[in-house]
Amino acid sequence: MAAVIDLNSDLGESFGAWTLGDDTAMLDLVTSANVACGFHAGDPATLLRTCRDAAQRGVRIGAQVGYRDLAGFGRRFIDVSSADLTADVIYQIGALDALARASGSAVAYVKPHGALYNAIVHHRDQARAVVDAVGAVNPSLPVLGLPGSVFLEEAEAGGLRAVPEAFADRAYTPEGRLVPRTEPGAVLHDPAEVAQRVLQLVTKGTVRAIEGSLIDVAAETICVHGDTPAAVEMAAAIRKLLDDKKIRVRPFV
Amino acid sequence: MAAVIDLNSDLGESFGAWTLGDDTAMLDLVTSANVACGFHAGDPATLLRTCRDAAQRGVRIGAQVGYRDLAGFGRRFIDVSSADLTADVIYQIGALDALARASGSAVAYVKPHGALYNAIVHHRDQARAVVDAVGAVNPSLPVLGLPGSVFLEEAEAGGLRAVPEAFADRAYTPEGRLVPRTEPGAVLHDPAEVAQRVLQLVTKGTVRAIEGSLIDVAAETICVHGDTPAAVEMAAAIRKLLDDKKIRVRPFV
Amino acid sequence: MAAVIDLNSDLGESFGAWTLGDDTAMLDLVTSANVACGFHAGDPATLLRTCRDAAQRGVRIGAQVGYRDLAGFGRRFIDVSSADLTADVIYQIGALDALARASGSAVAYVKPHGALYNAIVHHRDQARAVVDAVGAVNPSLPVLGLPGSVFLEEAEAGGLRAVPEAFADRAYTPEGRLVPRTEPGAVLHDPAEVAQRVLQLVTKGTVRAIEGSLIDVAAETICVHGDTPAAVEMAAAIRKLLDDKKIRVRPFV
Amino acid sequence: MAAVIDLNSDLGESFGAWTLGDDTAMLDLVTSANVACGFHAGDPATLLRTCRDAAQRGVRIGAQVGYRDLAGFGRRFIDVSSADLTADVIYQIGALDALARASGSAVAYVKPHGALYNAIVHHRDQARAVVDAVGAVNPSLPVLGLPGSVFLEEAEAGGLRAVPEAFADRAYTPEGRLVPRTEPGAVLHDPAEVAQRVLQLVTKGTVRAIEGSLIDVAAETICVHGDTPAAVEMAAAIRKLLDDKKIRVRPFV
Repeated sequence: MAAVIDLNSDLGESFGAWTLGDDTAMLDLVTSANVACGFHAGDPATLLRTCRDAAQRGVRIGAQVGYRDLAGFGRRFIDVSSADLTADVIYQIGALDALARASGSAVAYVKPHGALYNAIVHHRDQARAVVDAVGAVNPSLPVLGLPGSVFLEEAEAGGLRAVPEAFADRAYTPEGRLVPRTEPGAVLHDPAEVAQRVLQLVTKGTVRAIEGSLIDVAAETICVHGDTPAAVEMAAAIRKLLDDKKIRVRPFV
Repeated sequence: MAAVIDLNSDLGESFGAWTLGDDTAMLDLVTSANVACGFHAGDPATLLRTCRDAAQRGVRIGAQVGYRDLAGFGRRFIDVSSADLTADVIYQIGALDALARASGSAVAYVKPHGALYNAIVHHRDQARAVVDAVGAVNPSLPVLGLPGSVFLEEAEAGGLRAVPEAFADRAYTPEGRLVPRTEPGAVLHDPAEVAQRVLQLVTKGTVRAIEGSLIDVAAETICVHGDTPAAVEMAAAIRKLLDDKKIRVRPFV
Repeated sequence: MAAVIDLNSDLGESFGAWTLGDDTAMLDLVTSANVACGFHAGDPATLLRTCRDAAQRGVRIGAQVGYRDLAGFGRRFIDVSSADLTADVIYQIGALDALARASGSAVAYVKPHGALYNAIVHHRDQARAVVDAVGAVNPSLPVLGLPGSVFLEEAEAGGLRAVPEAFADRAYTPEGRLVPRTEPGAVLHDPAEVAQRVLQLVTKGTVRAIEGSLIDVAAETICVHGDTPAAVEMAAAIRKLLDDKKIRVRPFV
Repeated sequence: MAAVIDLNSDLGESFGAWTLGDDTAMLDLVTSANVACGFHAGDPATLLRTCRDAAQRGVRIGAQVGYRDLAGFGRRFIDVSSADLTADVIYQIGALDALARASGSAVAYVKPHGALYNAIVHHRDQARAVVDAVGAVNPSLPVLGLPGSVFLEEAEAGGLRAVPEAFADRAYTPEGRLVPRTEPGAVLHDPAEVAQRVLQLVTKGTVRAIEGSLIDVAAETICVHGDTPAAVEMAAAIRKLLDDKKIRVRPFV
């Protein structure tokens, strides 16, 4: 298994007067920043600030594209047409890329957000629409997704680099899917336990599923959450354990 | 005076189910398309379609940036801070540029829209904020504005190419400003008269002001409106007269 | 069968600079105006104007509530939670009611719009959320929906008056459902044919389904479209035939 | 001077995933809740929750109407036309009133927010537009504003009850205006000092202006901020001192 790993986190999710998460704290811990693009979160001034802070620290900037749904934070499935979704995703990547370039960096990858992320695990039309958008903007941009998802399958078919990710603090089903947040035990809260879990993911490529079985999860990057003080603490615990174990944490791209 | 001229028009201003203007008709008449960027008009799918249609015809694509105000169509002054305005403009240019590139073209210039256009005739902070945004995205992008405006002054000071424009169907004050739309006679409606006016602008660099004096108006491009059937007819009359007089109509950039 | 009938139409669907439909023409033909509420269409100034025009003519005002989706015109299913949907619908009814009252009228009924209308034919949680909202605002407000829909079923269970409606220009399946717009023959275009169809709906309570069978459709109101010049012409043909046949056209409420 | 006073605070300002302020803590301290109406803050589900919490505690609900500007939190002046502003304000009051009624209460007064509040200290057209809106919805609704403002003047001229308010933690000019937030000393931070200041406002009707003079400030209600933990602490200090001094804190309406 990899002696190196990437840590990614959702950032730039504040909007106007509303603050969410501690972006600067997280940017000291992760190597890839999934920066919102304004459709589900992130006003341009926030995004510019986050891009500058990421660029300064050498953290990679990814376009965290989502449904056009500020009120729902992109967490509600929207039955958007392929043509609209492709255009929406091109628009978002381009907007963030300009802000990233104004910060001396550039969009280095794409990661769908929230309900879109979950939808394209199965929803082939929407998956393909996102792949088409990335290909239209820049076919050398990798995309992040769930291992085994229709999205990563379509990404590879479309000639994109498909990067599988694991989740630090989420429970897995025996089939390697995420246990829905609505079910008990779906989210893990103990920093030490989560850090050990990440270590096992990185060094062995396995994780203990919710019913107890050991499953294979091949991931090039681990998603850590950053929207609460507890999340920052957890990310710090993960980072510290990886550093202690001499696992090199560096961008996947 | 120039034996060549550019004709520009505001396009891509539909939004979702709402249609505005006849973009394809106008794209056959003008050489520069000021394409909206989603903040005051233009959903991404509309913008992508307009960019494709423009690219196909060799019409240049300009970013028609505006205030974040769909309900007001960008026609209401907003006292936005410099930091927010700069980020908003970077965001808009980048978003449109990605759609233009996906269409085989690229954003070739920037033209502020509506109330922002009018504000930065005088408002130095907002003018500078727009100039900063263009410089941050790509300092080789020209900007369009009113001759004598603070905006073009700041653009030159900021190292941008400042392109003065004239308006085909708007009355001028003796000082070379536009007569406000709220005053009688502010907008001209006769296609033949407007076409003659444009011809004089192009060949002599002059226009008859509203009180009768002849004033100098140096313009590298002429703005023609395109949001009504009458506007398309007027643009056609202008184009025909210019063609008849062997004035070459071609992009300014 | 009824010697009286109500005609309803979707109005107030313009937004800011964007115009949709000819509201004043339609208000001379129908007896119930489903006025948009700002979430999928309708800025407040448009809505106020439409309410005034309706009140002046004695046309009833209904709250045409929809998903929060201006870019999609409320035509895309959104997987919104019950709590959010209930609050969204209360908000929309209240907003329109204040505008209607400022016009000397009031919201007299509720009709869900677009994708929400279609979703709650089947989607029980969303249907109930809309019913809860209407009940919370004013349980004496009737709701319009498709005969046999889960929505009308839940409305009755919730103590609301459930008003079944028929569609003038839509084809029906043998089961009494609407043929999806994506299928051939789903929408009828001939004004004379549609007018005859409406006459039969009103006098016999039947309609010819798409495969030829005669089906029962009990409707207290007929929906006519008003968003195109052709639609106005069709509404006029329907109204004229009903008037000629001495069918009384009057509000259902 | 009054042995009774009202304390009002801006509440319901969260939006979707973004939380702002501690509404329940503040609702235990104030007697009037200026609840946002969705245009600058407040999604319907948040507003419904805030209305319920207010109604439960007998706290009056005021409509905190603002410019349509989520990204700017209503803190940026928008040069909106009178017709649009009147319709926008009617819409907002109606929306909140329905949510308040669904909670067993009702909108009891109107208080403009942010940049609109500041604009109508001077801007007569916008002041009149707000007054027209309140009059159109319900002329018995009182409005809150700055003593001496054009808004309160127009409100009285328009037959509304004009309720002057003072600010607990803001410095005053010798003329009785608020020192702009951009100037040093504009906002006071010491809870004990602010509480004493409020006591003096209530018992003597005076406040020490920023340059040292004692000025008269006649207020029927005192605005306390609630958007930070420090603000809650300050409100608690104010409330405690008033209670200790046997000043009755109760709604002004």
